[in-house]
Amino acid sequence: MKLTYTHGGEIYDKQIQYDFSVNVNPFGLPKQAEEAIAGGLSSCHIYPDTKCEKLRQSIGEHWQIDASAIMCGNGASDLLFRAVMAWRPRQACIVSPAFVEYTKALKSVGCEISHYMLKPRGDTWEIQEDLLDWLGHRGVDLLILTNPGNPFGNGIFVDKMTEILNFCGEHHICVIVDECFMDFVKEKERYSVLDWMRKRIAQKNKGPVVLLKAFTKFYGMAGLRLGYCISSDLSLLEKMELCGPDWSVNGLSQLGGIAALSQKDYERETIVYIEKERKYMTEHLEREHYKVYSSIANFLCFRGSPSLYEQMMGRGILIRQCENFEGLDKTFYRIGIKTRKENDILLDQLRQCVK
Amino acid sequence: MKLTYTHGGEIYDKQIQYDFSVNVNPFGLPKQAEEAIAGGLSSCHIYPDTKCEKLRQSIGEHWQIDASAIMCGNGASDLLFRAVMAWRPRQACIVSPAFVEYTKALKSVGCEISHYMLKPRGDTWEIQEDLLDWLGHRGVDLLILTNPGNPFGNGIFVDKMTEILNFCGEHHICVIVDECFMDFVKEKERYSVLDWMRKRIAQKNKGPVVLLKAFTKFYGMAGLRLGYCISSDLSLLEKMELCGPDWSVNGLSQLGGIAALSQKDYERETIVYIEKERKYMTEHLEREHYKVYSSIANFLCFRGSPSLYEQMMGRGILIRQCENFEGLDKTFYRIGIKTRKENDILLDQLRQCVK
Repeated sequence: MKLTYTHGGEIYDKQIQYDFSVNVNPFGLPKQAEEAIAGGLSSCHIYPDTKCEKLRQSIGEHWQIDASAIMCGNGASDLLFRAVMAWRPRQACIVSPAFVEYTKALKSVGCEISHYMLKPRGDTWEIQEDLLDWLGHRGVDLLILTNPGNPFGNGIFVDKMTEILNFCGEHHICVIVDECFMDFVKEKERYSVLDWMRKRIAQKNKGPVVLLKAFTKFYGMAGLRLGYCISSDLSLLEKMELCGPDWSVNGLSQLGGIAALSQKDYERETIVYIEKERKYMTEHLEREHYKVYSSIANFLCFRGSPSLYEQMMGRGILIRQCENFEGLDKTFYRIGIKTRKENDILLDQLRQCVK
Repeated sequence: MKLTYTHGGEIYDKQIQYDFSVNVNPFGLPKQAEEAIAGGLSSCHIYPDTKCEKLRQSIGEHWQIDASAIMCGNGASDLLFRAVMAWRPRQACIVSPAFVEYTKALKSVGCEISHYMLKPRGDTWEIQEDLLDWLGHRGVDLLILTNPGNPFGNGIFVDKMTEILNFCGEHHICVIVDECFMDFVKEKERYSVLDWMRKRIAQKNKGPVVLLKAFTKFYGMAGLRLGYCISSDLSLLEKMELCGPDWSVNGLSQLGGIAALSQKDYERETIVYIEKERKYMTEHLEREHYKVYSSIANFLCFRGSPSLYEQMMGRGILIRQCENFEGLDKTFYRIGIKTRKENDILLDQLRQCVK
């Protein structure tokens, strides 16, 4: 069996000292979550709650959403696969460039895939006015889009999102909105469809919109796996439940997730830190004459020499070369925002490379 | 979203003191595995190895099988779903009664399901001579069978298994052999197809046979989730890899699994204990005039009053009522072998119930 690393993550087969290819909270797992997980070690022999009842209750309270509209998974990617299996699209559209796992999930159900490409505009990449027209004329039955986008960290305003969601609702197009990085965003109410979804749930609206969210990134639980989704389409959630094993979320993740959600200071401090540090990194990268794209998330995309990946690797630093993102090539790089000390090391090493 | 508990596991919504509905090693997670997991807590923010390289190497060394023929999953049920998705059967056959998750996985790909029913014979349930004839005349393209069987713990001899596998090979029927409880069996060489599979791997035979195995039960890792499969059909494994998220196995499970495999004393002592204790339980249940089926595994199936479930529940003891197993009704019960102290409590409480 041939296996390759496709998301970064080459830390397991290469000598890496600093991994900037991942977008995980630099504060790491909240201490209280680590304690909750440690406390669960003596119960590892007990099957986890297949319903994730307590965790779903905690998520529901956190966002003021009824727990029946929430489903947990073994990372958000588990829910992505389940949503695709449950909806069974024939013609899916991905707003691209985007997370390569979307394509993998769509291929697993043998569906046609088209890419609506974001267009570069100044220091950002944007959805253009033609998206709705484009969707309406291609027989698309599933749309996947990410907000903030990956790898650019571009935000889509909530008005635009609502317009897209309404259009898709009228045309019976299922929409998967991936907000896995939204928790990092400072003014999330300007972008997130969470409030829109909250209203839909209250209205018991059955439109097939699935909002994906993760603990993995914001709460530093990448190694443990935990994601969830929110939808007012309860019958779609029920189908998703049938499209995978019953025990998908391990017990330690459930404990860690519940504890993590109560860490309001950690949440606040993360958002403030990321905002400040992203500006710092943008400024310093631009000072080195790199083209940096405007991001609202916990990562940045910039352009550099195709050899930068290897150059940095030689210095023990892994950065994400974006060539396997649709439409991008080896000159696009993504870096996660890490601690100031690590960020300075990155900047320092970049200065010693050929741009 | 409506959710129900279908495998036992009602411990999360009922008052249960002793859960005999699960079949997990009563010795719990090996101490060394728990230590390895605790040691991994500080790395929870790091993405797990998507290839499970070290774990697959350890499993390969444990069974003297090349690691390229091994794939790890988020519990064996993750691999079951992936195998079904990758093979895409149109007409599957389950040797039944069996684990209800098989049906769920098959339904998720919209496949026709038929059940070949084991027949009761004395104190066991057996495959009859008509199985091959039956398979040959129904257009079956996928066969799922469990050895030892669940819920009876009946063993299928390796000669019989080989005959079935050879027949299926000739008729291009994919076979999923679930040996999730085989590690508990004393004379496993009389039953397991592992050695047969080892030869197939050496021969690079491409026949689609998937051998499912779990850490969940034998190593008391039910809460953490960890399973694996072995197949000489590397292209099927590659397809399975594409039928689910890349990061399916969390990092703590990988650490725990590697540590668990090195525990040879734990392995030996478990097998001796289970053998002894299963005989003890069989003898005492029979003394109480329960019909008990012969088992080679770490659980027992017996017949009792349909009200026994509720009666025992009232005493804080959960036993597995088997009515959602194909062909069985409310008079079939399965109990996992637990510690002597717990087993005696079960016997004592059963004596106070109406049979």
